[in-house]
Amino acid sequence: MATQAEASAGAPLAARFEAVRALSLAIAAPLSDADATIQPMPDASPAKWHLAHTTWFFETFVLRDHVPGYELFAERWAFLFNSYYEAEGERHARPRRGMLSRPSLDEVKAYRAAVDKALLAAVPDLPLHVLDLVELGLNHEQQHQELMLMDMLATFAANPLLPATWKSPPRQPTPLPGAVNWIPGKTDVHGIGHDGRGFAFDCEGPRHEVLLRPHALAERLVANGEWIEFIGDGGYTRADLWLSDAWAWVRENGVEAPLYWMRDEEGWQRFGLDGVTPVSLAEPVCHISYYEADAFARWAGARLPTEAEWEVAAASVDPCGGNQLDSAGAVRPIGGDSLFGDVWQWTMSAYLPHPGFRAAEGAVGEYNGKFMSGQMVLKGASCATPRGHSRASYRNFFYPHQRWMFSGLRLAKDL
Amino acid sequence: MATQAEASAGAPLAARFEAVRALSLAIAAPLSDADATIQPMPDASPAKWHLAHTTWFFETFVLRDHVPGYELFAERWAFLFNSYYEAEGERHARPRRGMLSRPSLDEVKAYRAAVDKALLAAVPDLPLHVLDLVELGLNHEQQHQELMLMDMLATFAANPLLPATWKSPPRQPTPLPGAVNWIPGKTDVHGIGHDGRGFAFDCEGPRHEVLLRPHALAERLVANGEWIEFIGDGGYTRADLWLSDAWAWVRENGVEAPLYWMRDEEGWQRFGLDGVTPVSLAEPVCHISYYEADAFARWAGARLPTEAEWEVAAASVDPCGGNQLDSAGAVRPIGGDSLFGDVWQWTMSAYLPHPGFRAAEGAVGEYNGKFMSGQMVLKGASCATPRGHSRASYRNFFYPHQRWMFSGLRLAKDL
Amino acid sequence: MATQAEASAGAPLAARFEAVRALSLAIAAPLSDADATIQPMPDASPAKWHLAHTTWFFETFVLRDHVPGYELFAERWAFLFNSYYEAEGERHARPRRGMLSRPSLDEVKAYRAAVDKALLAAVPDLPLHVLDLVELGLNHEQQHQELMLMDMLATFAANPLLPATWKSPPRQPTPLPGAVNWIPGKTDVHGIGHDGRGFAFDCEGPRHEVLLRPHALAERLVANGEWIEFIGDGGYTRADLWLSDAWAWVRENGVEAPLYWMRDEEGWQRFGLDGVTPVSLAEPVCHISYYEADAFARWAGARLPTEAEWEVAAASVDPCGGNQLDSAGAVRPIGGDSLFGDVWQWTMSAYLPHPGFRAAEGAVGEYNGKFMSGQMVLKGASCATPRGHSRASYRNFFYPHQRWMFSGLRLAKDL
Amino acid sequence: MATQAEASAGAPLAARFEAVRALSLAIAAPLSDADATIQPMPDASPAKWHLAHTTWFFETFVLRDHVPGYELFAERWAFLFNSYYEAEGERHARPRRGMLSRPSLDEVKAYRAAVDKALLAAVPDLPLHVLDLVELGLNHEQQHQELMLMDMLATFAANPLLPATWKSPPRQPTPLPGAVNWIPGKTDVHGIGHDGRGFAFDCEGPRHEVLLRPHALAERLVANGEWIEFIGDGGYTRADLWLSDAWAWVRENGVEAPLYWMRDEEGWQRFGLDGVTPVSLAEPVCHISYYEADAFARWAGARLPTEAEWEVAAASVDPCGGNQLDSAGAVRPIGGDSLFGDVWQWTMSAYLPHPGFRAAEGAVGEYNGKFMSGQMVLKGASCATPRGHSRASYRNFFYPHQRWMFSGLRLAKDL
Repeated sequence: MATQAEASAGAPLAARFEAVRALSLAIAAPLSDADATIQPMPDASPAKWHLAHTTWFFETFVLRDHVPGYELFAERWAFLFNSYYEAEGERHARPRRGMLSRPSLDEVKAYRAAVDKALLAAVPDLPLHVLDLVELGLNHEQQHQELMLMDMLATFAANPLLPATWKSPPRQPTPLPGAVNWIPGKTDVHGIGHDGRGFAFDCEGPRHEVLLRPHALAERLVANGEWIEFIGDGGYTRADLWLSDAWAWVRENGVEAPLYWMRDEEGWQRFGLDGVTPVSLAEPVCHISYYEADAFARWAGARLPTEAEWEVAAASVDPCGGNQLDSAGAVRPIGGDSLFGDVWQWTMSAYLPHPGFRAAEGAVGEYNGKFMSGQMVLKGASCATPRGHSRASYRNFFYPHQRWMFSGLRLAKDL
Repeated sequence: MATQAEASAGAPLAARFEAVRALSLAIAAPLSDADATIQPMPDASPAKWHLAHTTWFFETFVLRDHVPGYELFAERWAFLFNSYYEAEGERHARPRRGMLSRPSLDEVKAYRAAVDKALLAAVPDLPLHVLDLVELGLNHEQQHQELMLMDMLATFAANPLLPATWKSPPRQPTPLPGAVNWIPGKTDVHGIGHDGRGFAFDCEGPRHEVLLRPHALAERLVANGEWIEFIGDGGYTRADLWLSDAWAWVRENGVEAPLYWMRDEEGWQRFGLDGVTPVSLAEPVCHISYYEADAFARWAGARLPTEAEWEVAAASVDPCGGNQLDSAGAVRPIGGDSLFGDVWQWTMSAYLPHPGFRAAEGAVGEYNGKFMSGQMVLKGASCATPRGHSRASYRNFFYPHQRWMFSGLRLAKDL
Repeated sequence: MATQAEASAGAPLAARFEAVRALSLAIAAPLSDADATIQPMPDASPAKWHLAHTTWFFETFVLRDHVPGYELFAERWAFLFNSYYEAEGERHARPRRGMLSRPSLDEVKAYRAAVDKALLAAVPDLPLHVLDLVELGLNHEQQHQELMLMDMLATFAANPLLPATWKSPPRQPTPLPGAVNWIPGKTDVHGIGHDGRGFAFDCEGPRHEVLLRPHALAERLVANGEWIEFIGDGGYTRADLWLSDAWAWVRENGVEAPLYWMRDEEGWQRFGLDGVTPVSLAEPVCHISYYEADAFARWAGARLPTEAEWEVAAASVDPCGGNQLDSAGAVRPIGGDSLFGDVWQWTMSAYLPHPGFRAAEGAVGEYNGKFMSGQMVLKGASCATPRGHSRASYRNFFYPHQRWMFSGLRLAKDL
Repeated sequence: MATQAEASAGAPLAARFEAVRALSLAIAAPLSDADATIQPMPDASPAKWHLAHTTWFFETFVLRDHVPGYELFAERWAFLFNSYYEAEGERHARPRRGMLSRPSLDEVKAYRAAVDKALLAAVPDLPLHVLDLVELGLNHEQQHQELMLMDMLATFAANPLLPATWKSPPRQPTPLPGAVNWIPGKTDVHGIGHDGRGFAFDCEGPRHEVLLRPHALAERLVANGEWIEFIGDGGYTRADLWLSDAWAWVRENGVEAPLYWMRDEEGWQRFGLDGVTPVSLAEPVCHISYYEADAFARWAGARLPTEAEWEVAAASVDPCGGNQLDSAGAVRPIGGDSLFGDVWQWTMSAYLPHPGFRAAEGAVGEYNGKFMSGQMVLKGASCATPRGHSRASYRNFFYPHQRWMFSGLRLAKDL
């Protein structure tokens, strides 16, 4: 049976629009107005803000710019819900997004409904290049669906009561997986980057050739049980395992385990959208920074894959496979066979432009290009990525110290 | 007709308990769960937190300690709602009070109802020294009523939409008041400090003698119109008018007017609980720091009163007079004849122990004494002070840079 | 035999000028150009800067303003060596004073010599009110002599090699002093503040009456041995002993002993201008903050004196007595009978204007008045205070957390 | 005529050792003890520290580890002069290197002399793998020679007197160069990285193949005159030209020109080791960050070269050509034909390991590998690079916001 996302991928745009917009509301459904308003750190945004910002995107770049006679739902909200588009003017400071108790969650839902109605009414008459903006808006909203799940987790983790967002059925304990199988990768010259067929973000292209050296990728992700061995072997206390910036980060922040892990008398616990549960040895490790991934790989005598190695390996893999997001709920890594799903995988490649990349003109051109500094590429998809959203050429990116996303690692080695 | 506060002052404890507790809820009534949850700055607390903390105070120091068999409403909330009592153990960090979307506002109201019910049932059997704790709790809650109004204003001021909490009827513009009348003060030796009759906070005593020199106090508070003259005369740009710490504060923070003032093409506007309205020339200036009060006084060729000068002058004045808080609403200074009301008045006296002061034993002893460092005394009462709460010996105190409270000034001079 | 300072106090101004100027050079004599250039923290200034700034004071307020035809030694140095006089224009930022490797120490000494020569030549013709500025300059320089000793100590303490500035003969260990004798103080109305006879800083006046309650002062200063008992009794770990601001300071800075104390296997050591030596039990404790003094007094069941109590007691004491600075060398508290000397004594009085105080007009009026915010008064004199500089009405002042000066405490109690 | 560096490159190790060590002293010769002691910012180190640290390197890794019976010059100096080698134990904090007025500059020179003598005596008996450490030490010292020049400039720039280190003969004004000539680069597969013949730093290898796309490099560096056009065209005020991190950096730091540029009534001036002189239009722009280089390239409709493009182009170029450091003096970009010299050239490549890179074991293995995070590669050499030190495979690296080094740019474009 096809999942919701698979079904909708080939569906008419209007139906897909409705499905994507509905999923955002379903994710936010367990939240009170207060839950959806507060901001636990500058990197994270309130759920209400995500719901409004994704709506502002459609309202601004489709309705305002291309639907004659459209009147803004609320003149001053553009100031509140523009994220970072300099070309769209001044905006509310990112670290102060948690100050917006007004408009209320219900008002934001009314905003969504009004924009949805206007957009669905307009779709039949929109020219093709504007339908492309709708498509962009849908993919943009899917990104914010994952961000919303990340930020909800960060929000509840900031509350000493550690409330669960969704109840989960208890899981059977699974044994620590056996030794890693190494899958040799392709060598010589191959193409990577998006070829322009179907939707992709600007930063995924142009398609270009890369040269691969003999190497192998681990058949599976690094598991929690292995991470506990790393900790037990002094992983967080040995300077020689860490990059210089990484070691400074470990010491300044007192890092000694993945984010959301806590040790009590019964061992390691972790907090997730389903509350506090014991760390399961077999599950892929999650919520780790690039710094930690790099140190673990060094400890394990291996390295991280390059973006190109990963992408060439993924070229023949169904990007809709694995543990990805089909519906709202307490997402969590499980571990499986697919290259996609469970956790985003840190690569050793910096997020820099593909050869020949040029940002588009205008506000939409700010989409990805201007973040090409200081960040590293992650590939694949996570349990919080809407199924159908990712693909082999997809380039996720974060700063090396960040770890509130669903991030893990797959080892690689030279042959 | 007696106001609510005047009426309740002489009423039986149970009736006063119900009246005070009801006023807190009335103040919070216009707030959504989200409004009551967010925290605009570390100095301010969410309204929900105030509602819960004042309840925790009664639950802990009365019910838990003195009512056999009482069971805590929620075991882990003590961690959340203890403010600063070291003797009561670890507590949630003050700058993170805005992270508590759970418990919800409704749950906190249920907490209030449960504690109120248990306390009212217990009152008839409580010994006198425990009834003193109830009395302390009521005065404590009145302080938080004023804090709640201050913090609500700070919260909405952090929202670019600048929402009004209560609608107010429009006011008639009033002319700038005429020149100040100077009222000579008493000289020689007089007693100040609380004499132990009726309730007072620990820091108000012991009563002791002070020596007064020839001086006079202004008959009225400094008005907005005078403050605009100060601004027009370069008040915020002349280093010679400011204390050294004050000048550094002005420059680092770009201060150029009282808090919540904004200049637009029509002149000075100010934001209050009734939204944005023009600055009224006749109204007492409000939301100024000690640094600003001191600079203004220097500019005016005068000085601030000492605590003793003010308190001796107030000894024969009814502390329930003037513009104080009778019921929930958009409080705002008006200007009047009383020494009390409208705005708290900065003095030039540091908040230090009265001679012979000793803090009480135990957690309650942390009430006031430990803050006797780095703060200045304010006297009187403001439009946000529950009528009946203040008195001549009352010692309000803030750091010299703070100004989110309803603070203003009355000039003094040597004779 | 009269000490240098005593002798010079009554000497003609020119002779006193030469003596004071010579002492500054003697204090700086052990310093290399590099020693005299670096700045260990924003509060402290390089020795070279002190030598130049005190010279700038004479050059600016005497020679430039009152000696026709005088040409500045170096036009641009005023920018470097103005400390905080806003009326004298922009100046080099205080935390960057350690960046001035040029001018060199030798050039600064040449500056001193040139200004000294010009000033001595001018003195015979200066009118009385300008001679008052010379007198002010001398007292100003004496203050900087003590600051120079404090800052030199802070400078060498920042060097892991902990170099000694001067060699000291070894001291005989002295036993812990016995129990404190309490000396009852005067009561009722007394005058304090400077009466205008002889030199005093502006902030010491006007003279005015104060009311004293029954009290007693300890006959001696608190000793190191007592401080070690305080530490042993958990003094730095018990929140109930500390003011709220103080406790936050202890925790943020990991404070657990006086400044410059270190514990090794042989017990407590302290670093001074004579290098590292064991803490001597009988010597007065030194390098403590107001926060620590206040906590110790609370632990000891006593309190700090008020400024008025101390000053009335000192009225009949020779201010030139005790362990004060007679010549350059490794100053160090000893412990003795005088109210003056060894260490400045924290009082519980805020540094606020005496009744009737008005700052003088012009740049010199910035001398003391603008610092009357947030600081506490210390009385007496220290082993680093030039003998003859202090008096009963002298008001030293520091922020409650500062402790790089030679500060200690004398207990007081109510009777 | 062969330069000093060219001559010494083929010279016996002992002679080269003496030449390199002598150049360090020559660079520091104009400095007083104080000049050599202060530290203008955490990124920069005092000249004295450079002189001592390079000596510590030889003393530790050669004499201590490989010369039996060698006794350390001063036991405790290792703590002071270890830079970042975790394996060598705790060390003085980097931002506090400016606190070391002791040891003096003369003592550090004596340390150099003693270590030089011991090392030269030992060289004849050292095994080959230890001679490799001497070679490493020499290249290490050459790096510090350039750092010393950078840090001296930063040090004097922090002094409002802006002293010149060396006098320079006045230069003839040169006209703005004409339009750029574009030199097409090689395409297809080429080798880069060091091949192991002769000295190279660990991070330069292994040699490996890269794939080049059609592109061209500008024949010359970007000149100051072009940068002034960029400024005049609003370069520093247009968000669309900047990466997101870059724009935040521009705004937070108020950046509006290259480092050390100042505008006065006569136009742009720049501060260098020869003091303040007018910006020369024809000279290569210097002291710019990656953020600025990237923004300029975008403004110019071009891009930065990749490391591989640059290195392949440089394979056939003499790395000892161009304006590089031959002797101590006021180094300054001139502009010329060579790919090497004048300024280091920012590339668009992140500083990440070459394929197959593995750090060496032990402390020396910390040399380069642990910095492979967050930095960008610069290629070539600057006017402050000792001639003979750099080569095509050389990888210099800095954080994208840094600009106190001699950094500029050469444009590239796709064909």
